[in-house]
Amino acid sequence: MTDTDDDTLLDLARDLAAAARAVTLRHFRQPFTVDAKGDASPVTIADRDAETAMRRLLAARVPAHGILGEEHGAERTGADQVWVLDPIDGTRAFITGVPVWGTLIALVRAGKPVIGIIDHPALGECWIGVAGRPTLHRRDGAAPVPVRTRACPTLAAASLFATAPEMFAAPADFAAFRRVADRARYTRYGTDCLAYGLIAAGHADLAVEGGMKPYDYCSHVPVLEGAGGVISDWQGQPLGLGSDGRVLAAGDTALHRVALGVLAP
Amino acid sequence: MTDTDDDTLLDLARDLAAAARAVTLRHFRQPFTVDAKGDASPVTIADRDAETAMRRLLAARVPAHGILGEEHGAERTGADQVWVLDPIDGTRAFITGVPVWGTLIALVRAGKPVIGIIDHPALGECWIGVAGRPTLHRRDGAAPVPVRTRACPTLAAASLFATAPEMFAAPADFAAFRRVADRARYTRYGTDCLAYGLIAAGHADLAVEGGMKPYDYCSHVPVLEGAGGVISDWQGQPLGLGSDGRVLAAGDTALHRVALGVLAP
Repeated sequence: MTDTDDDTLLDLARDLAAAARAVTLRHFRQPFTVDAKGDASPVTIADRDAETAMRRLLAARVPAHGILGEEHGAERTGADQVWVLDPIDGTRAFITGVPVWGTLIALVRAGKPVIGIIDHPALGECWIGVAGRPTLHRRDGAAPVPVRTRACPTLAAASLFATAPEMFAAPADFAAFRRVADRARYTRYGTDCLAYGLIAAGHADLAVEGGMKPYDYCSHVPVLEGAGGVISDWQGQPLGLGSDGRVLAAGDTALHRVALGVLAP
Repeated sequence: MTDTDDDTLLDLARDLAAAARAVTLRHFRQPFTVDAKGDASPVTIADRDAETAMRRLLAARVPAHGILGEEHGAERTGADQVWVLDPIDGTRAFITGVPVWGTLIALVRAGKPVIGIIDHPALGECWIGVAGRPTLHRRDGAAPVPVRTRACPTLAAASLFATAPEMFAAPADFAAFRRVADRARYTRYGTDCLAYGLIAAGHADLAVEGGMKPYDYCSHVPVLEGAGGVISDWQGQPLGLGSDGRVLAAGDTALHRVALGVLAP
């Protein structure tokens, strides 16, 4: 792969975000029907149609690539390059009018996430990560600017994000989360994917989450790493399509080590 | 009091919001020092300076009115008209870059909140309530539009908001909150004051919160009531300066009665 290839693929990722955005913004804060999926999580026509729009673009431009999407399943996930799509991360936020939901787009190459986009249409901002490049933050109508995580080596000084305490299904996982939360300076809930962009940009320090699927976290890997942060599972292993859904992200590598130790049973 | 008086006072309330906004937006997502107050809650120069800017306007235009502010205390709270100010509701959101924080402004007349503004500078939207008038929602650059709550008479269909499960200091209060949350369709955390505007606008149904101070809830009373909703303490009593800090807001009066019953010990 050459830089030109990554630039072409990044252009495609941005086009995917734009295609999803056209759908999601049409539905946000409008009346719609909320259905329950097999796992009882909510889904709307906005989730389904936004993923369909992205899949249509992928089929036209990179038909040999694999796709793993939250709403419409897996195709060719044995391919060397797999697009991992969450049309609306934070569907509960979306259906209640809270604008922190986002569209997540990742390209996973040979098992490693190499492009990640966290797009927040209702906030008018977006984070863009590409392996080996500085992470960019773009606000609507402004040029993208590079972002960096901030130094915060101790839990006692750290701001911690988690979407909800109920996301830790196993009691041991909830207890591990509580150990971190009890030592952190502040804990903030309800953050969904916005947590990872804000850590990348140095506004907060730590995210500890559970019950996540590949389309919930693959995009965050290039965004965090390109900003100087670190993201892994709770054992410190790199995240990929086969991870167990427990995610630890930190802006400061020293804080990541500390949190790993506190999470360990 | 005549309508002209309320219009003049509403203009003043909007000017207060604008004065606070000029301060808060200058600091949001910029480096600043976070101090801990006596109750260990965080405060920044943005909180303090935004309240100072509002107090300066009040001193110039309504010097006989009372003021109760989160950061700079109480003056003349025995006056017939008292302004109740929270320069940044959601300071934890503010300091971590999450844009759902807001500035809360209420006018309490003879013990009853009669004007309420919930302003979200970083989201570019605002809710405006005046006793006896329809609640308005304004987006930056657009004309205000009236909003209404939605019908949702049952807990099983309700979307529930609470800022954090840790806001219920007493175990019995947390248990009461859990009883409601366990029966609701969805629970969403991290909402701060945005919860009340979204319920007023019919995007969600219920807020159950605890540990709140008058500057955390007085503005919500005219906003909810002018949109067809209802807000009270956990006994169903009207909120005022002397309430106990436990708040229940619902878009549907039938849902409010149901939730009161579930909260009762």
